[in-house]
Amino acid sequence: MQVDGKSMRTIWLEPDGWSVCVIDQTALPHRFLTARLTTLAEAAHAIRTMVIRGAPLIGATAAYGMCLALREDASDDTLERAYATLIATRPTAVNLKWALDEIMAVVRNRPRTERSSAAYRRAAEICEDDIATNAAIGRNGLPLIKAAAARKKPNKPVNVLTHCNAGALATVDIGTATAPIYLAHDSGIAVHVFADETRPRNQGASLTAWELGQHGVPHTVIADNTGGHLMQHGLIDLVIVGADRVTANGDVCNKIGTYLKALAAHDNTVPFYVASPSSTIDFSIRDGVAEIPIEQRNADEVTNISGRTPDGRIESVRIVPDGSPAANYAFDVTPARLVTGLITERGVIAASHSAIQGAFPERAGGAK
Amino acid sequence: MQVDGKSMRTIWLEPDGWSVCVIDQTALPHRFLTARLTTLAEAAHAIRTMVIRGAPLIGATAAYGMCLALREDASDDTLERAYATLIATRPTAVNLKWALDEIMAVVRNRPRTERSSAAYRRAAEICEDDIATNAAIGRNGLPLIKAAAARKKPNKPVNVLTHCNAGALATVDIGTATAPIYLAHDSGIAVHVFADETRPRNQGASLTAWELGQHGVPHTVIADNTGGHLMQHGLIDLVIVGADRVTANGDVCNKIGTYLKALAAHDNTVPFYVASPSSTIDFSIRDGVAEIPIEQRNADEVTNISGRTPDGRIESVRIVPDGSPAANYAFDVTPARLVTGLITERGVIAASHSAIQGAFPERAGGAK
Repeated sequence: MQVDGKSMRTIWLEPDGWSVCVIDQTALPHRFLTARLTTLAEAAHAIRTMVIRGAPLIGATAAYGMCLALREDASDDTLERAYATLIATRPTAVNLKWALDEIMAVVRNRPRTERSSAAYRRAAEICEDDIATNAAIGRNGLPLIKAAAARKKPNKPVNVLTHCNAGALATVDIGTATAPIYLAHDSGIAVHVFADETRPRNQGASLTAWELGQHGVPHTVIADNTGGHLMQHGLIDLVIVGADRVTANGDVCNKIGTYLKALAAHDNTVPFYVASPSSTIDFSIRDGVAEIPIEQRNADEVTNISGRTPDGRIESVRIVPDGSPAANYAFDVTPARLVTGLITERGVIAASHSAIQGAFPERAGGAK
Repeated sequence: MQVDGKSMRTIWLEPDGWSVCVIDQTALPHRFLTARLTTLAEAAHAIRTMVIRGAPLIGATAAYGMCLALREDASDDTLERAYATLIATRPTAVNLKWALDEIMAVVRNRPRTERSSAAYRRAAEICEDDIATNAAIGRNGLPLIKAAAARKKPNKPVNVLTHCNAGALATVDIGTATAPIYLAHDSGIAVHVFADETRPRNQGASLTAWELGQHGVPHTVIADNTGGHLMQHGLIDLVIVGADRVTANGDVCNKIGTYLKALAAHDNTVPFYVASPSSTIDFSIRDGVAEIPIEQRNADEVTNISGRTPDGRIESVRIVPDGSPAANYAFDVTPARLVTGLITERGVIAASHSAIQGAFPERAGGAK
């Protein structure tokens, strides 16, 4: 990821070798701040309050949260408590559980003296694996953008719609939905991104627009209401979104509103792709609408909005009448029938039980 | 409409008998202010800057704008200039043209000395007709809510989703989409409204929530992204929206994002109704997507948002990064195939050419 022209990641170990630093995403796009995490409680708080967010980055941060807990006390009790604390921070992202289980697996049957260092090694691997996975997603998704470019008139950019932020900021680096976009842009293909604002937390307007801008990718921010109109008028060539959880059948749980864009894409024959690492696939679940618990967050995220005043202060303003309640569902489920394909680290595969099983046979064994 | 327990309208003549007063909708929901219009320029400015908005209220205000112009100078030149000025304020709403043509019809062949008073009479009639029309829309739509109530368990409210504000504030009084809701609520049927926030101008969060709250109708504000999820989980019994323009074939042009809700309703077999007076029907157009010009408004409406600070000031804050462009399409078109029915002053009719022609034969004569 480019920040002021320099490459960086969203999460890294400090020079002290144990404390963890992250980009504070609640301050973007107006201020670039970092936050240092030194305890389990600080890691859990960072996940819960969305200082960091995005399924892969939640996983990486949770893994380091386990490290920070084990560094203080490598007992079984602490291990269980750290797991329970971190798993409760965000109920929807499956990577969170996956990353915690990975740490559990490497420390559980190990002497206490070795647990902390083993956890740190595995957390670092999870971060490196995330980057390698996203690079593979980029390589696998690139031909889709190339094919769209081949269908455009010369000098007309490929218009990609994305929802929320499945970018570098949602991962350790590169991003999932953005991986093919960055690769296309860097290889000289003209790409333009329509970034859905993504109410209520505005991750599209504040994070996707920011990281695309930092990388020099042309983009336009639109209200979430706009994508259907653009598709009706041929202004979107393909949609690429991320996922917080994909079921064994290919249903996609992602940021609230994704389903509406999938419906519009289907209605206008616009390809709708989900870029997602296999760690996001939950082989224990088939029917996403029926089985995935949808996190409900604080109504304040709907009734109030934060931004920068003309004189440069960050201020939260209320936008609904006093006394009007609000509801805040964080995710929805896009049925597999609306998904053109899943862009994974092993290629673009159909959003179907058989295709997913075929691509990930070693993990599919655990399916119901 | 109830405001602090008192009945009022959105537009009225002042006791002086000629100047026009309107509720300033740009100050809601945080402040209740009115604006006095004394000239053509002030009326045009009020429409353009959305001090007033909503297709029927735009029509009524434009009619009074003609009156204000003719009061100063009843010449043909002024008449033509007033028409040209007002028609240019908002390109999408067909009621605007309809109301201007109505005033034109009553003044054109009249002596100059009689023009102003004839225009004021016709403008007053347009206002009274709007209220009568909306009351009829309410009566015609009420059975749809009653039928939904009959399918619910006892003490479970009928959940209506609406988008933008097609309420009393969009009309002279009562509203179009809200007319059946107010009538149901007033007759003791338990109704609960999910009000889409309606980015970028937030008419749902700021206006619909406010007027429902003033009237005592239970409601919940949701992000525009949320409706699909609610429908997937059976939490919406019916959708009622308004319209800025309906084509002779039943395509519906309404606030951007309406199309996405219609797709979700169709996908989940939720009835999708459009409450709209026949003055909104444009018999000269058939294919809404191809033929209706969609107003593009200032990108600032997307990049900045206005609200109330904790200490009570109204402040505009920027929510996208500096340098990120934004696009702001104000409306979209919902194809007739996604519309369950049009709730008009003459009953609930199918969104089809034949049904619309059958219901309004005297106007359909002008169709292509």
